[in-house]
This record gives sequence, structure tokens and C-alpha cells, in this order.
Amino acid sequence: MPSVFWILFDGGGDRPVGGRTPFHTAFKPTIDYLTSLGSCGILDPIAPGVRPGSDTAHLALFGYDPYKYYTGRGAFEALGAGLELKPGDVAFRTNLATIDDNGMVLDRRAGRYITPEEVEAVENLMANIAEDIKRKYGVEIIYKSTVEHRGVLVLRGSVSHKVSDTDPHKVGAKLLESRPLENSKEAVLTAEVINEVTKRFSEVAKDLEINRKRRLEGRLPINAILLRGGGYMPQIEPVRERYNIKAAAIAGVALIRGVARAVGMDVYTARGLGGTKDDMFDEAVRLAVELMGRYDLVFLHVKGTDSASHDGDFKGKVSVIERLDKALTPYLDKLLNNYVVITSDHATPISIKEHTGESVPILLYGPDVVTDDVSKFSELTCWRGALGRIRGIDVMPILGSYLALTEKFGE
Amino acid sequence: MPSVFWILFDGGGDRPVGGRTPFHTAFKPTIDYLTSLGSCGILDPIAPGVRPGSDTAHLALFGYDPYKYYTGRGAFEALGAGLELKPGDVAFRTNLATIDDNGMVLDRRAGRYITPEEVEAVENLMANIAEDIKRKYGVEIIYKSTVEHRGVLVLRGSVSHKVSDTDPHKVGAKLLESRPLENSKEAVLTAEVINEVTKRFSEVAKDLEINRKRRLEGRLPINAILLRGGGYMPQIEPVRERYNIKAAAIAGVALIRGVARAVGMDVYTARGLGGTKDDMFDEAVRLAVELMGRYDLVFLHVKGTDSASHDGDFKGKVSVIERLDKALTPYLDKLLNNYVVITSDHATPISIKEHTGESVPILLYGPDVVTDDVSKFSELTCWRGALGRIRGIDVMPILGSYLALTEKFGE
Repeated sequence: MPSVFWILFDGGGDRPVGGRTPFHTAFKPTIDYLTSLGSCGILDPIAPGVRPGSDTAHLALFGYDPYKYYTGRGAFEALGAGLELKPGDVAFRTNLATIDDNGMVLDRRAGRYITPEEVEAVENLMANIAEDIKRKYGVEIIYKSTVEHRGVLVLRGSVSHKVSDTDPHKVGAKLLESRPLENSKEAVLTAEVINEVTKRFSEVAKDLEINRKRRLEGRLPINAILLRGGGYMPQIEPVRERYNIKAAAIAGVALIRGVARAVGMDVYTARGLGGTKDDMFDEAVRLAVELMGRYDLVFLHVKGTDSASHDGDFKGKVSVIERLDKALTPYLDKLLNNYVVITSDHATPISIKEHTGESVPILLYGPDVVTDDVSKFSELTCWRGALGRIRGIDVMPILGSYLALTEKFGE
Repeated sequence: MPSVFWILFDGGGDRPVGGRTPFHTAFKPTIDYLTSLGSCGILDPIAPGVRPGSDTAHLALFGYDPYKYYTGRGAFEALGAGLELKPGDVAFRTNLATIDDNGMVLDRRAGRYITPEEVEAVENLMANIAEDIKRKYGVEIIYKSTVEHRGVLVLRGSVSHKVSDTDPHKVGAKLLESRPLENSKEAVLTAEVINEVTKRFSEVAKDLEINRKRRLEGRLPINAILLRGGGYMPQIEPVRERYNIKAAAIAGVALIRGVARAVGMDVYTARGLGGTKDDMFDEAVRLAVELMGRYDLVFLHVKGTDSASHDGDFKGKVSVIERLDKALTPYLDKLLNNYVVITSDHATPISIKEHTGESVPILLYGPDVVTDDVSKFSELTCWRGALGRIRGIDVMPILGSYLALTEKFGE
């Protein structure tokens, strides 16, 4: 039985600068060879012009209407961090940050780099706060650091996600009070708990040993926690049931790992896949090819193209694409006997440094897929291809049909 | 006034094998001449990747969302067999079959060929059972044979379509008991009636004179009736009202005749149109051209491409297309002054022998339709055309607009 290797370049789409895009510029002989044998098209990850987040775009690409299934970033971050979410739990994405004496945010990332010792100190601090909160409000809180300043906070009890963020989302603004966004006692309680946690964190953190040390080293203290994207576990019928597809995802980034877990994919990572523009893909591709023997679909998330885009680094973006292509080359024969999908979850143009809403190129290669005229995978060429213009949510049904796994509708 | 001649090759779409498909291979100068003058595109009969049944695909192509209007195969089969369905009636597609003493299915079609004398004996037997059922349960049952082993069974009374099939859908499995699929007294009663009919049929049939004769001739006995696809009459606003289009359908296959009747088309058949890959189309095309004088739209259903595909018969599929093309040739001048649509309701690739979910080619020819670059009707070319990628449900509004029959929306 053939399977599908689906490679997604996060933020891979771009706009032409001087007539070129990173996809168009990259030397990627293996991807372009597959392109010359397959069907190309353009893809609206959510709908034409909609600027997707990586989480909503991945939900759509995995076959779930994000307008129906997206329940806030926090839930997917928590899943991606390896936490279990129970029905009723509310999860937030958190930042460790630096504020001044008036509560004004000086750095939303407290200098970004956090040592393992600091992580431990913060997690201990949160565990202490959790005990008090449990006693006072009957609400359980679970904090987990993920990468650098990032973390997740889960609230368990009579809580609601209908509360506002404490993260002001910019430097120079004051750390916000959370407010209930609906008139329910759960929302009122949740906002109260969040505000208490936020206040306690800053009170206790300023006297932590790690911050004394940080000050000595001239580093910014970790003296605030910012919450955003409150969400709850979506009720999602797994990919295996909805599409009869057994799927694995290889991803280094917590948010994408979380979305993949939420839709019931088995989640893997690989050496070299840290989620930066310096990632190396040899191990990830080797693992993907191995997993193709056990799964109908193997999804590989490439974060570096998005990271480079947010930095405005054209060359870096090209280099990520070229490194991925090089990692594919040893497996060309294997790929030629299976299906290969290459696309992106949204454009992040180098010139804009933010997610934008234009369509992105898509390739579908397969031994029995129509060969069109397109022989280079690029924004400048794929619109000419045999797939025409499709949407993110169309991809899984198309693959399910090629894999002969989906049910017929009618007789 | 021009009208539309719409030719649909059932299961006509295919996947390239050695770089070719049946549409690409067929010598079809008339269709390709029209193609060279018209607009081509690719069509998702229901939605990208969705594997359609012929019934759901035709509903969509006739302009009705099958997710809203599809009420089970049985209803369309019954309509196609010429039965009237009243609100509340439940209809099943039936097979006459052969079982062994333990109720295991030996042949789901009882050898397929049924003589007129045998049809009469079976209909008489069912009429007797109907009397008892009516007395015992107050439920009226109406059985009608259609072609070969095929038939329909209509239940009228306090019945429900929410019951399971008795057809195990494969040889070597036992004839199933029908079970209610919901907790209503109608569903419970319906399952009971079906099981009683099924039991009585096998008890009485085994002693029928026709079966004594069949055994002597070495033929399989008709000793079971298999039910599947329970459905009810959909509430459908006729094509004439919804699209202001007066439409006729020419089809030999009961299921398609049923869908056409359900949407309010006048249904015709023609000599040579038996629904097999040996069909001849001269009479059907002659009739279609005649009907174009009286209808806005004439739909011709060509079943042979699907039959050949299920048999894995590439040459046979090509031959069906070539015969249809040849039948068109004498009417080329007439066609050039009207609109012609050529498409398919789904792909049935020769290599798969089952309905699949990829898009199929579509041609729209008309004296005032844009001419694009495509000059050959094929999966390998039509994606290049001026129509782009559309859906089944888009076709009727497009035709209504070219015919200047549909209402303007707004001012």
C-alpha cells in the first residue's frame, strides 16, 4: 500500500521581490523533479484572503474547519507541551516577562533565554502558588515551561475560557487585569484566579535567587507572567475515524505538535528539528520515510521558513528549503512509489514579516496523479497547474481518495 | 432559443496509466472539435476528494446539495422503476439471490439473468406475502422487479427508513436480520416487517415451480431477497421551479432515472440504451436532438463507461466513448448552434475499479462561450481550460445563465 509524505513549509509562501520568491530562488532539484511529474495548484489554507495563524491553518489542512474546531491557542500549546487536557480545563499560553515597578512591560520575553535552573525555580514558584490557589478557590493550576520564555498554564475546576488576556501584546504597555468576557460565575472566578496568580507571581519572583543572579549578570529579571489565548480542549473526531487515515506528524514546535495531537495523529520529533531556521532535516526525513511503512500519512512540519520570514531573512528562508530538499534526495526512489504533498500553511512574506492571506503553492505527486506543465515549485508557476485552486480543508479528502481509504457517499 | 445537450459519461473520469486515460485515448473527433471551440475545466462532482455515488453526484449536478437532499438509494431506485412514492413511504433496493440451507449467500444475483416467467412468479409470491403482511402489521408492501435480479420494495404505513440492510453486501456471508437504527416504534415495526418478508420469501420460494426448473437446468435457485439502501422520497423543488429550466433526461438505468424524476425532469429512454458497455447511442442521440426542440436542457446518461471501469476494461471504456462520439457526428451543425456540456459524475479508474474522488474533466461549448486553448477532452488537458475548477452544484446555475432563464439576484 502506498502512503503519503506531506512536507509543510511553515510560512513558506512569499511575495515576489525583484521578481522572485524564496521557493522560486531555492535550488531544490528533488522537489522540482517531483513537481515536474505531479499536479500543482494554489491553496487557500483557510479561505481566500484570510490571514491564518499556524494553528488554524493546520487544523484546516488536517481536515477540520477552524471556524468550528478552533478553541484558542492555549489548548493546542498545552497539548503540544505534553499536558493532558480534561473536558472543562482551560489552558493559556504564557510568557515569562520583565516589568518595571509600575507594571509596565519592559520585555515580553525576559531576554528570551532562560536557563534550566531558572525554569526549575519558576516551576517551583508556580507549584507553591498552585497550592494556595487550590485552597482558596478550589481551582487546580498546572504550569509547564516549554521552550525559552514560553510555557502553558492549565486551570482545572469550575473555570471558563471566556476571560481576557493579561498579556498587553506589546512593550511599553501595562500588564493587564483579566476580565470576564461573559456574565457567568465561572468566567468571574477564572479572571479572579488569573489576576491572583499574576499578582502573586510578580510579588514572589522579584526576590528569587535567580533574579538576584540575573541582575548581577546584567540580565533582565523574570518578574511577570503574561497569559494569552485561553482555550479549551476541542471535541475532535480523530483523523483515523473521520478520514480512515492513520497519520503521524513530525514536528519540533509545541503548537503544531498540539494541533496534530488534538486531531489524533501520533506525534514524533527528530534530532535537528528544533523549530529554528538552523534546523537540519536529515534525521527528520529518515524518520518520515521509516514511518511511511507504518502509517498512511506522514506529516513533516518545517518551521524554519517562517522563522526566517519573521526575521526578514530571504537567504535564510532559501537555505531552509534547500536543506530540506537535500535531505530528500537519498529517498527519491521511495518517494516516486508513494504520494508526496508539498505546501505551506500561509505566506509570511520577507517584505512583511507577518502572516498574510494570499494563496500558497501546492504539489501533489503520485504514481497515478496527472502530470501537468509545472516543473518548478513556486508561487510564480503553480497557479498554472492541474489542481487549480483548492482550500486547506480539501487536502485530506483528496488524499483519502487516492489512498482508497475514504467511504463512498451514496451508491 | 438555444438549448443545452448535456452528455454525462458515468464513471468516465480516470487516472493516467502509462500516461493515458480512456478519454485521452478515444478517437472522438466530434467531441474534440466542440472542445476546441469551447471552455474546459475540472469538476468536483460533490467536493474535492469526496468519493461520490452516482446518485449523490447526479443530485449535485442537477443542482441539489446531496448532503441536504439525498434520502437513500431506495427512494431513487423506486422512482426510477416507475413507482409513485408517497410521503412516509420507505423504499429499498432489492436483489433476488441464492442462499444455502444455513442462510449463507451463494450468489447475490441468483445468476443475474431472470426470465419474464420467473419475474412473474416472484411478483406473485410477493403479492401473496403482501396480503399477509397487511393483515398482520397494517403495512402495505409493493414489490417491483426492474432489470435482471434487481427490484424495489416499498413499505407504506407507520414505517421508518432507520433500519439496517439485510443484504450482507458480499458472498459467503449470512443473510442479515434487519435491526432498527433508532428507538422509535416505526423503526422497530419496519425491521420486524422486513425480517418477516425475508423469512417468508425464502420459505415459499424454495418450492416454486420456477426453482424446480432452474435446478433441472443447472441454474441457481431464486430463494432469497436482499434489501439495502432504505430511503424515503426527498422534498425537492423541481428543476423547473428552482432554475426555471425545462429539462428532459434520457437514461436506461433505474437509479439515474429515479434521480432525474425526483428533481422533476421528464424521463425518456431509447432503444440501445440498456445500461451496459455494449449500448448503442444512435437512437438516444437522435431522440436527444429531437427533444432539444421542446426542452431547455436534454441530459443523456451514458452508463457503459462506468460498467467497463468496474470490469477493469480499458478498451471497452474507450469504445463506449467512441460510439457516443460517432452517434453525435451527424448532428454537428445542430450542436454548434446550441450549448453542449460533456462531463462525468465521478472517476472510476480502470486501475481501481471503484468510484474515486478526484476531479473530472468538463466541457462547456456554446456559440458565445469563451474559446480556450484546450482542443482535446481529457483529464490530461481540461485543467488548462477557461472554466477553472468548479463543483457539480455550479453547473445548473451556469447553464441557466447562458440560457437567460435564471433570475437576477439584486438590481
